[in-house]
Order: sequence, then C-alpha cells, then structure tokens
Amino acid sequence: MEGTDDDVPLILTWDDANSGLLSEETERQDENGGGGYDIVNNQVIPTPGPPPNYRSHNASLRQSWEMNYQEAAIYLQEGENNDKFFTHPRNPKALAAYLFAHNHLFYMMELLTGVLLMVLSLCEAPAVPSLRLDVYVHATLELLALVMVAFELCMKLRWLGFHTFIRHKRTMVKTCVLLLQFVEAIVVLIRQTSHLRVTRALRPIFLVDCRYCGAVRRNLRQIFQSLPPFIDILLLLLFFMVIFAILGFCLFSPNTSDPYFNTLENSIVSLFVLVTTANFPDVMMPAYSRNRWSCVFFIVYLSIELYFIMNLLLAVVFDTFNGVEKMKFKSLLLHKRSAIDHAFQLLVSRQRPMGVSLKQFDGLMRFYRPRMSSRDRFLTYKALNTAGAPMLSLEDFYKFYEVIGLKWKARRSGEHWFDDLPHTTFLIFKGINLLVKSKAFQYTMYVVVAVNGVWILVETYMLNSGFSWSRIVPWSYIVFLTIYGVEVLLKVTGLGPLTYFSSGWNLFDFTVTVFAFLGLIALAFDMEPFYFIVVLRPLQLLRLFKIKQRYRNVLDTMFELFPRMASLGLTLIIFYYSFAIVGMEFFADVVYPNCCNTSTVADSYRQINVTIGNRTVLDEGYYYLNNFNNILSSFVTLFELTVVNNWYITMEGVTSMTTHWSRLYFMTFYIVTMVVMTIIVAFILDAFVFRMNYSRKNKEPLLDPEDENGIVFEAEASRDEALATLELYKQTCPGLSSLNSLQGVLLAMDRSGSSSLVYLGRRSRTKSDLSMKMYEEEIQEWYAEYSRVNVPQSDRSLVDRELDIPPPCPDPEHES
Amino acid sequence: MEGTDDDVPLILTWDDANSGLLSEETERQDENGGGGYDIVNNQVIPTPGPPPNYRSHNASLRQSWEMNYQEAAIYLQEGENNDKFFTHPRNPKALAAYLFAHNHLFYMMELLTGVLLMVLSLCEAPAVPSLRLDVYVHATLELLALVMVAFELCMKLRWLGFHTFIRHKRTMVKTCVLLLQFVEAIVVLIRQTSHLRVTRALRPIFLVDCRYCGAVRRNLRQIFQSLPPFIDILLLLLFFMVIFAILGFCLFSPNTSDPYFNTLENSIVSLFVLVTTANFPDVMMPAYSRNRWSCVFFIVYLSIELYFIMNLLLAVVFDTFNGVEKMKFKSLLLHKRSAIDHAFQLLVSRQRPMGVSLKQFDGLMRFYRPRMSSRDRFLTYKALNTAGAPMLSLEDFYKFYEVIGLKWKARRSGEHWFDDLPHTTFLIFKGINLLVKSKAFQYTMYVVVAVNGVWILVETYMLNSGFSWSRIVPWSYIVFLTIYGVEVLLKVTGLGPLTYFSSGWNLFDFTVTVFAFLGLIALAFDMEPFYFIVVLRPLQLLRLFKIKQRYRNVLDTMFELFPRMASLGLTLIIFYYSFAIVGMEFFADVVYPNCCNTSTVADSYRQINVTIGNRTVLDEGYYYLNNFNNILSSFVTLFELTVVNNWYITMEGVTSMTTHWSRLYFMTFYIVTMVVMTIIVAFILDAFVFRMNYSRKNKEPLLDPEDENGIVFEAEASRDEALATLELYKQTCPGLSSLNSLQGVLLAMDRSGSSSLVYLGRRSRTKSDLSMKMYEEEIQEWYAEYSRVNVPQSDRSLVDRELDIPPPCPDPEHES
Repeated sequence: MEGTDDDVPLILTWDDANSGLLSEETERQDENGGGGYDIVNNQVIPTPGPPPNYRSHNASLRQSWEMNYQEAAIYLQEGENNDKFFTHPRNPKALAAYLFAHNHLFYMMELLTGVLLMVLSLCEAPAVPSLRLDVYVHATLELLALVMVAFELCMKLRWLGFHTFIRHKRTMVKTCVLLLQFVEAIVVLIRQTSHLRVTRALRPIFLVDCRYCGAVRRNLRQIFQSLPPFIDILLLLLFFMVIFAILGFCLFSPNTSDPYFNTLENSIVSLFVLVTTANFPDVMMPAYSRNRWSCVFFIVYLSIELYFIMNLLLAVVFDTFNGVEKMKFKSLLLHKRSAIDHAFQLLVSRQRPMGVSLKQFDGLMRFYRPRMSSRDRFLTYKALNTAGAPMLSLEDFYKFYEVIGLKWKARRSGEHWFDDLPHTTFLIFKGINLLVKSKAFQYTMYVVVAVNGVWILVETYMLNSGFSWSRIVPWSYIVFLTIYGVEVLLKVTGLGPLTYFSSGWNLFDFTVTVFAFLGLIALAFDMEPFYFIVVLRPLQLLRLFKIKQRYRNVLDTMFELFPRMASLGLTLIIFYYSFAIVGMEFFADVVYPNCCNTSTVADSYRQINVTIGNRTVLDEGYYYLNNFNNILSSFVTLFELTVVNNWYITMEGVTSMTTHWSRLYFMTFYIVTMVVMTIIVAFILDAFVFRMNYSRKNKEPLLDPEDENGIVFEAEASRDEALATLELYKQTCPGLSSLNSLQGVLLAMDRSGSSSLVYLGRRSRTKSDLSMKMYEEEIQEWYAEYSRVNVPQSDRSLVDRELDIPPPCPDPEHES
Repeated sequence: MEGTDDDVPLILTWDDANSGLLSEETERQDENGGGGYDIVNNQVIPTPGPPPNYRSHNASLRQSWEMNYQEAAIYLQEGENNDKFFTHPRNPKALAAYLFAHNHLFYMMELLTGVLLMVLSLCEAPAVPSLRLDVYVHATLELLALVMVAFELCMKLRWLGFHTFIRHKRTMVKTCVLLLQFVEAIVVLIRQTSHLRVTRALRPIFLVDCRYCGAVRRNLRQIFQSLPPFIDILLLLLFFMVIFAILGFCLFSPNTSDPYFNTLENSIVSLFVLVTTANFPDVMMPAYSRNRWSCVFFIVYLSIELYFIMNLLLAVVFDTFNGVEKMKFKSLLLHKRSAIDHAFQLLVSRQRPMGVSLKQFDGLMRFYRPRMSSRDRFLTYKALNTAGAPMLSLEDFYKFYEVIGLKWKARRSGEHWFDDLPHTTFLIFKGINLLVKSKAFQYTMYVVVAVNGVWILVETYMLNSGFSWSRIVPWSYIVFLTIYGVEVLLKVTGLGPLTYFSSGWNLFDFTVTVFAFLGLIALAFDMEPFYFIVVLRPLQLLRLFKIKQRYRNVLDTMFELFPRMASLGLTLIIFYYSFAIVGMEFFADVVYPNCCNTSTVADSYRQINVTIGNRTVLDEGYYYLNNFNNILSSFVTLFELTVVNNWYITMEGVTSMTTHWSRLYFMTFYIVTMVVMTIIVAFILDAFVFRMNYSRKNKEPLLDPEDENGIVFEAEASRDEALATLELYKQTCPGLSSLNSLQGVLLAMDRSGSSSLVYLGRRSRTKSDLSMKMYEEEIQEWYAEYSRVNVPQSDRSLVDRELDIPPPCPDPEHES
C-alpha cells in the first residue's frame, strides 16, 4: 500500500526533487549551528540540475523516503564509528563517493595498501636475506601502492569536498607524506639504488589512517593527550639527572679508574642509564671500591629518580588517562546520541513527528545492515519498542546502539537439547547431564588436572639429562588424554553442543584437548613440524584457575581487555616500525662479531675460540646479534631495548662504531617506549581497578549465570504482528529471500501452537556497557546538559508544526 | 569558689571514695558492651582498701573531679594514638603503671633500647672492622638491653593486667622473642663465641613495638592486609613460570651451548630471573643464535609475565591499598569520636549533663597537655565553643582533635611588621616590601637562577679534563652568591622574619644560600671536609620549579607525604635488617676476589692484572664487593638486589660458593621487596591521584593564600571573659606561672584599647584533613551508622537523669 501511504518526511534530504511538493520544508534552519558536540547543520544544499517534474507524486515520495533512510543510516554509522558530522556527505555526488569509500571492500583495500607499504621494508635495501627483491621490483610495488593511496585520497576529496578536505588535518598530513614518498620512490626507480630514506619511517601513517585502525588512532590521540603532564614530570626527572650528573662528575672524576664519570657527558649518560637501572651496580662499583660511602650518592639518586619520580610519572599518567578515558566515553556517548537525534529527524513523517513506524525503521535497517534478516529487523524493532506503542519514540530510539548488535534466538521451551528424544535416550542423556553438572565431577576433573600437572613436572624433572624428542609416546600422556577426551565427550553430549560451546572455558578445554590429540597423532606418525603441540600439554593446567573467583575475574577481564590490548600492541608496533626504519638507515651492519674493541662493552661482542684444557670452546658474547641489519632483527633489538636490561650494551656498541650522537636515538627510543609502556600500565591498572570497583558497586560477583552471557534483551513476537510485518515487507521489497526468516518465525509458532514466541537477543558485554553502569548517575547529568545545549529537533519541529504547518491529511499508516 | 561549686561528676572513675556521697552512681551499666569499634566498657572496678571517710565533702568532690579529668585525658590520648580501649587502665594501680609507661622519657627509653639492640649487629661477629667489639662486651650490652625490654614488659603487665596482657598478641610475640634472645645471649656469654644466631633477625620486633614506631606498625599491618590478593596473583605468576620453564626446557635443552635451560631447575631459575628482566637478553642469546624464531618464546613470556601479570599485581595491590586506606581512616575517625564520647561523659556534671564548662575543660587540659599555656587553653576552649553558649556541647567537643594542635597568634591589626616604625623608615621598608612582592622581582630572580644553572653546566662541561678541588674561588660563584644573599636580605626585611620563614620555599632558599656561604668560607679557608657543600650549588636551581603550578603541587604533596614515606622507608629497612642478619649468618665471607670460578659469572668476580701493550692494568670485576661480610655491606648488597639489575650475578656467585639452596634466600628476598615496593608504588600512586582528585573536586588550586598556611581557626577573646577566666585559673591552681600568658592577653587589650582581641590558630594540613574533605558525605554516613550502634551516652544519661535523678541543686557556676 505504498501508493496510498503518503506520509511525508518531516525533513527532506539531498535533493530538491520535492521542493514543489513540500516547499515549506526547504527553508530549514541551521538548527544546531554553534551547539556543542560537533553537531554541524544537516541543511540541504540544493544541487543544480533540472527539477525532475516528470516524477509522479508517489514515486517521488517513495524516493525521498529512500533518501532519508539512507542518510539516517549514514548518520547512525557515523555515530557508531565516531566520525564527525562535518564529514557528512552534503550532496548526491558526495554521497556516491561516500558510499564508494564506505564499504568493507574499500576498507580492505586501504588496509592492504597500508600493510603492503609497511611490509615492503622486509625486501628493501637492508632486507631479510631470503626476501630480498631487486630495486626496480620493490620500487614499482611501492609506486603501485602509492597510486592506490592517491586514488583513495581522491575519493575522499570528492566525498568531503575541497573545503572540508583541507581542513581535515590528518588527511592533509597524509597527502604531504604521500607526495614526499612519491618523489622518493621515483628517485629510487631512476637511480636504481636506495638513498638514505628515513622518511620511510612515516609509512605507518597510511596504515593508521585506515578505517580498521580506528582503535590505534584513538590510542595515539590518548597518548598525545597524556603527553603534557608527562613531559612536565619528565623535565623534573631530567633536571635531577643533570644536577646529579654535575655532582657525580665533581665527586668521582678524580678517580681515574672510573670510566662512568670521567666527563660530564659520560656522567649524564651513566645517570640516564641508571634511571633504567640497566648499569646498576656496575656504575657504582669503581667509586664504591674506592670509598664505601659513595654508595649514598647512588642510593639517594635511585630513591629520588627511580622510586619517586618514575612512580610520580605513572601517577600523573594514570590520573590523566582516567580523565581522558571518561571524557572519551562521554563524548562517544553524546556523539551517538546526537547521531540518533539526526537519524530520528529523518525518519519521522510530517504527520507523526514524534515516532518512527516499523516501516521506516525497516527502511533504515535495509541501508544500515543490508545483510540483516527480516526476522532480526523485526525483533530489533520489538526490542526497542519496550512500551508496546505503535511507534518508536525518541526515547526508545536512543537505545538503538545497545540493541543493534544482538544475536537473536528463540527462548527454548524445554531445558535440554535432548528433551525431544525418546524416553530411554532421554534418561541416559539426563543422567549424563546431571553427572556433568555435579560438583563431584568438576572437582574430580580438577584433581585429575592437578595430578597431571604434578606428573608432567616430575616427568620433566626426571629428564635432567636433557630433553629429546623420543618417538615413544609415554603411557601417562595417553591415559590423561583419554580422560580429557571422555570429559569433553560427556560434556558435549550432556549439555548439548550449543550450550557447551557458548562458554569460553569449554571452548578452551576443547581446543586444548583437540590439539593434544593432534600432538598424539603427530607423535605416532613421526611428524616433525607438529612436535611443539606436544609441548603445549601444560596448558591443560590453566583449567585449575577456574576454581577461584579472583582468577576467573582476572581471566575474564583479560578477555574483555583483549581488543584494547591488541590495539595498544599495534600502536607499539607502529612506533617500533618507525624506529626500526631509522635504525636500519643509520646502523645497518655497523656491529659484527669482534667489533667495538674501543668501547667498554667489547666483551659482549666477542666471538673467539678459547682453549680450556685440551678442548677448544667458542667464547661468544652474542651481542652482535642485536643489530639493525634487517627489519626483523631490528624489531627484536628494539624489544630488547624496551625490556631495558643491558640496553646500554647495544647502545655503547653501536655508539663506538658510529658517533656519539647515536645515543640520541637510543635515549629517544627509551623515552618513547616509556610513554607507551606507562600508558599500557595505566590502562591495565585502570581497567582492573574499574572492574573491581564495578564488582563492588554492584555488590555481586560478575559471574552470576545471567551476566556470564553478557547483555540480554527480550522481544516477544506475536502471531498477528509477525503476519502484518511479513505483509508489509512483501510490499516493500517483494523479491527478497530474506523474508524466509520471518516466515520461519511463523512456522515455529505454528509448530508450537502458541500465538507468540519470546526471542532472546544476546551479545557479549563490552567496556562501554560496564561504563554505562558505572557512571549511571553522571550519564543522566551529561544527557541533561546535552539537551540544554541541543534542544532536541523533535521538540522544535513539533513547535514548528503546531505553529505553522497544518496537518496535511490523516495518517494512513494503520488503515492500510 | 571551688568550695561552693559542688557540681557533681556524672560518672565517677577509678575509686569508690565517694561511694557514700553518690551511691546511685556506682551501679554503672556496661553501656557500650558489645558495641562496635572496640569500645569496651569503662566500668569502675572497685578497689579494695578502706573507704576514705575522713575526707571532707568538697575535698573528695574536688579529688573525684581531678580523677575524672585524668581519665578523660587518657581517653583522649588513646583516641589520638589509636590505642584500643581494652588496654585502658582499670584501677589506680594500673593507672600508676600506665602513667609511668606513657611519657616521652619512657618512650625514648623503649626506642633507644630497640635501636641499641639493632645497632649491636654492627659490632657482633661479622662486624664492621672499625667497630668490632669483644664477645663479652657486646653480649653484656645485649643482656642489658634485654633486661630493659623485660622491665618495660613488666610495666606493661602491671598496667594491662595479666588477662589483657596474654590476650594482646603483639605483646605475647614480643615476650616469646625476648625469652629466646635471653637464652641465646646467655649462651653466647658462656661460650664466649657467637653460634649461628639467625634469631637476631627477629630483633626489629623490639623497635617496631615502640610507641614512636606506630606508623611502621600500621604499614606492616597494611602490608599484611594486602597480602592475600597479592599471593593469588603471585601464584598465577609462578604457575606461568613453571609452564614456560617446562616448555623452555623441552625447546632449548637439546642446544648444548645453552647453559640457561639445560636442566628443569636452571630453566625455572632462568625464567624467575627473566621476570625481573635481570638476565635479558643474555638468556635468549644462545637460543636466538641457533634459531631466530626462538625469540618468540621470550617475547611471549615477557609480555605475559612482565607486562601483564606484574601490572595486574600492581592493580590488585593498588585496589586493596585504596580500600584499606579508607577503612583505616574510617576506623581512626570513629575511634577518635568514641574517645571523645568517653571523655565527654567524664567531664559533664550531674547538674548539667549536656555540657562541659570552661573549668572542666581546663582541668582536662592540665592533664592532656600539661605544658600548654593558660592563654592557649582558654583560646582552644573558645575555638571549640563556636556557638558562644556557656558550655561546650558534645557536638562542639567532637572538634577537639582538629583544634588541639593549633598554634595561636593574635591577628595583627596592621599588615606589616614595620607599621610601628617612624615614617621615613616605614617608607623605606614599604618600598622594599612592594619590590619583593612584585612579579618583576620574582621573575628577575628566576632568570638569575636559570642563568646560574646554565653557567654551572657550561663551567662543568669546560672542565672535561676532570674535576679538581682548586683553591681559587671562581668569580661567577661570588657574583651569584651575592645576588642570592641580597635577595634573602631584601626578603627578610621586606616581609619581616616571621612571614618570611613561615613559607617552606623561603626556608629552602635561606638554607641553600647559607650553605653556599659556608661553602665559600670553606673554599677560602681551605677546609677540606666542607668541600661537598660547594657541590650543592646546583640545588639553587630547584627554585625554578616554583614557576609552574604542577611542580608546586608535586613538591607540596611530596612534603605532605614525607612522614608516610619515611615510615615506609623504615619498614623497608626493618625487612632489610632481618634479611641482612640471615645473609650474614649464612653467606659472610663466601665471596672474595677470583672466587666463583665454577659459575657462569666468574668474570664479575675476577681481579687480575692484565698487560695491555706495556702497561699493567688491574682488571676488576668488583662483584666481590657485593657481599654479606658485615651489616653495612649487607645493606648495600640488599639495595642492589632491590634495584634488581644484575642481581643474579650476586645470586650465582654466592650459590656457586655454597649450595644451590641459597637461591631460596635471594628469591624470597626478591618477592618480599616486590611486595614492599609495590605497596610503596601503590601508596605514591594513591597519594597523588587522591591529591589530584581533591584539587579537582574542590575546583580550586590547593595553593590559594589561605590554604597555603594549612588549617586556620579563629577565636575571639573578650576582655570580660579573659578576666573571668583569669580569676577562675587563679583559684584552681594559684601558684602557676603559666597564668602570665593570659595576663599578657589582658595587657595586649589594654595597649590596643579594644575590648576584645581576635586570635588565629594555625596548623599545617595533614592527609587526614584532606580525607575529611574528600569523604565529606561518606563521613556523615559513618557517623550516622556509628550513632546507631552506640547510642551516645549523653542521650542515655539524659534519659537516666530525667527518669531517676532529681536535679540536686541549682548550678552555681555563673553565680560565682
């Protein structure tokens, strides 16, 4: 009945096709201009071109609705991705570019280009030996990748418009870097040899700018936000370092056997390294052997710098981080709310400006989640519509982002998966179910695992002569594996595969057991490459940590943190990459066995044959392995520098073979990793303290049965509604196969004979859900403040309507 | 008018002298029995002995008041010192012992005994060479000290009574240790040689039990309270360590050139050391040189253990610490409140059970602060009596502890100290005052300091040939010092000495400048021992940190934290002491130059002459200096172990010369210091985050003019009141010279011609004041909860009074 349904959108978007039809609407005011939270006006910019007067009234109405659905979906996407609204496409041309640039294919292309550019350094000049490529090959590849990036930028230019484009800082930086890299790549291709290309260190920008690396971008922003207080305290640290360096120089330089304080520069370097503790107690020893009281200098220095100021640094970062984290949550929340406001405005009709009907919601969803089945769309609508009113109010619609990720499943009438089986079988399965759920079974398994652990330990201890990959499978291995195998089978049959695999712990058990079996097969069939699987046996012991609530909490938090941790890790890798490139450009091949003989660390680079008794032994210092000869070695070296211990050996080695300005590189790297590491520590601290506060505040362990499964919403689908919805869908887009799922609901109702079915939507809980609960009260304040700044459009247009616009016709929605 | 003032105390304490007089009172009920917060009954236990019927009514009344004052003062002291009320003296005999054991002389004796016992280890068996004493000397000293401790314990037994004594855990432990030490000291004295006396490690108990070491005791309690969650996470850490040790053994033991993983034990030890990062990257190198991918094992291990679980440890301790800190504050607060409740009951009279008069307050203060001047007693009363009512209500009295530490000073009518000087002089001083307070002057000084800093740096840098103590004073030194001297003089004259020295920063400036002058004199007169003062010149640069708000905050917080930090440091030293004793007993003289040749760390213990070219150079490894040969060396060695870097060299050296069980000592020490250090980090974190939250919550920088001076109370003394009070005091204790101060107030009033004077009481702000403000709302809840559990005695006795006891006579207080 689309033809008779002439609801008119309250707001028209992107085209003035209906300007004749709804001329009052075209003078939309810049309602949000100047309001907070980056809400930029969504005013229509009339496009040139002839007015399409040839369209029929209904067709144009339908088309304007479709436009509105699409723009609403884009707003919601922008809210979800935290894209600022000033990058919102303003006209159909921009829309086309926007749509082209906003799909997973394009994102993947962006990502792959970025990765390709970074991976290129494996094959460039100081290359990993097995991956070396000729200059013209990798230069051509680089040029290709750069062309891709340029193409992406062009699409962005088209979508953003020139004006917004040059205002967008990140994009401008990217453009500059791109141009630079272009020139350099061409130079390389012409000269057929790599020059000093430090600018390759900027390559991660292309990766960071990817849509998929949003988390990394946020991390970087957070790091930069934490910088000012960090730098303040760092200055304090350096200040004391200089004071003590002068003092140390005055006190210890008369001692000629003390190489650490013989010049002021050495004195400063020694104390810098001492803050990292890497040269303690060696740095103290010459002075200490001369005069025992000189230890006071070092103890005071370390107490002030290491134990006080470094902790202060952590405190300041932790505090800033906490604040930034909360502000980030707030602005994300309000951004989403504002996106929902925008979308809502586009979905309401002039006839009913206070609510979104199922039809409009469905239209939105077809753009927002094209692959979502009709059943899920319907259930999502039902979940939002808690009041049961015929339309979604703005208040209902505000829950949009909480509901959108749910996975829907019919609530089972029966308890077990085997309820429908014949009686005898049922009894057997019921027995297994009871057994598996019993405490006795659980604790027996814990005992088995513990025994297994002790067994492995003793067995390994017996092998003191050294481990060898014997082909004989030890019988204990088979026994324990059999027990685990039986346990998995019992659990799968007793609980049903679905219930079983819905728990992370069971999944873990299953994986470990399967790997153990693979290992057994590998052992039996002599497959060398699988031998490491056998070594993973001790992982079974991890199951013991289920016993204690605290460990479960810790591990659960760990899993919740994992995405953030991964993004932090990626951020760190990006820093590593830049430093690795710079390191390779300057320090490739500078250290080698028996180099650095002029430095104090020559021993560590030694590789000579020593004759002890009548045997010749290779005396190796090994540190020549910590080099910048290719990107992989560089990464390992940088990791060693991050761990900090003995980092000065690498520094002194490189310094002795180059200039003493090289120290700047190592010191800068130390400070940068210190920042990132402090942020990581602050993040872990914050996450756990937050989690523990949360547990305390809600006075319940986090693992009560319902909570374990994350967030749960309920939606009841009645037969009539489902039928009506099916009818509606059939008219809206008749040819879609996705209707099957809704028909499935009806079928299920028929089968069970009930007139309604309850569906449960679940998703795992995210940090944002926890935050929502933690800041409950503050959130209300934020919302109140937000509403003060942005008078909701619905209210305003309601006023408009009541003042100016007479209701054009009775709403036909429910007559159809 | 004491004779006519027959106010009768509501509650009588300690003697039943007045049992005939006030027989109703003797059946006091156990009012607080079973209540929360350790409030034990303050019931009178009648002592045997003849009733002193010979006393006159008034004399006995006066005496019973005196008794009450004393007991109230004791309650308030208990509240202040956080002594539990069940150690409250119950009868006059106990009271005598209590008074004997509660004064600074006795406390000093306790402290000195404790210190003497600990210091003895400087002179015992592996003694510091220059302090070595014969066995009979130090054993006799030890016996003497132990006898002192025994005497102290006897006093405590007498004061607490046998029953309470054996219930008091700490005292019982002390008694047992005392007995053990006694036996051992006698054995040493008889055998004339020290046996293996590991129990000396228990000596710190005597120190910790001192009254003055209350903060250390609280720290220890806090550490023990943080232990359970700490141990949980520690187990997780060790668990992963064992898993990885097994894995590492399997993976790397086939490599015969890898000494770190050749047995399971070595594997575990290597990974233990790796968690402290002390052997990284060395531990990785043999495997890494064989196969580059083996670095993955180490990276994964370090990521899990070092970067995740160790931070988790900090998070858990931080969280527990936060909670414990708040609970401690709460219980201290409520304990004080309860002490005030008790004291109040003892100070009110039967005639006026709702208030404490000045006379009674004064009586209390004579016991509570015997040295306080009459003026200050009067002003304290006025400060408490905010309502201006004739008596202090309980509500007023609750502020007792906030008011008691104030230093009183008349509010000056004039602004400057030179207001009373002749006009010309006044103008000069006024000019100086304005100059000194001007921004320009401040910034000029900053510039001078900065220039001085750069100067020192450049000057030192020029000395690259090595520093030598030249006798020629550099002219720059004299110039800068003159500027600083002039600045100090200007400031002192401009602001007045009192104002000048009341600021910590000025005090710092003054000290540094004076020391610099001393250094100059030392240089001029060739005094060797003072040369280090010259070196302290760069400390002037610290003044630069006044410029920035954040630094001021940091440094102020540092000063506020200092007492807590000191007590934490002392706690650490106590742990050090115990470990040092154990170390000396087992490892004294085991390492020496060129020892440990069988270990992997032989190089570090080497001391040989090496011929390079034609010069003979001593090639020293120095690590033999890190030994346990006497207690001072042990402390330095333990500090090195605390800093962790290269600690395995010390461990391996000692292990190679003893058994491999020695590793247990080092590992235990590592874990213990890790606990203490984590607590220290948590404490610093907590203190700073707390402070920053406080600043934010109160939306003002902490350093606004009023706040800078800490807590301020006001009291107005009117002439009539002062006169009346003076009269009262004269009658109470006529001979006291302390009345002079009150007469001084009257004199000051005469001089200024006003009928009243306003006095300001100031004290510096403590953490507790900050906490009071931070937890404002929660504190009200706690109080409410507290009142529910303990119905205030005043209310109850009011009920008693109204029900049973008729008002005996009109109150003569104000008729006198």
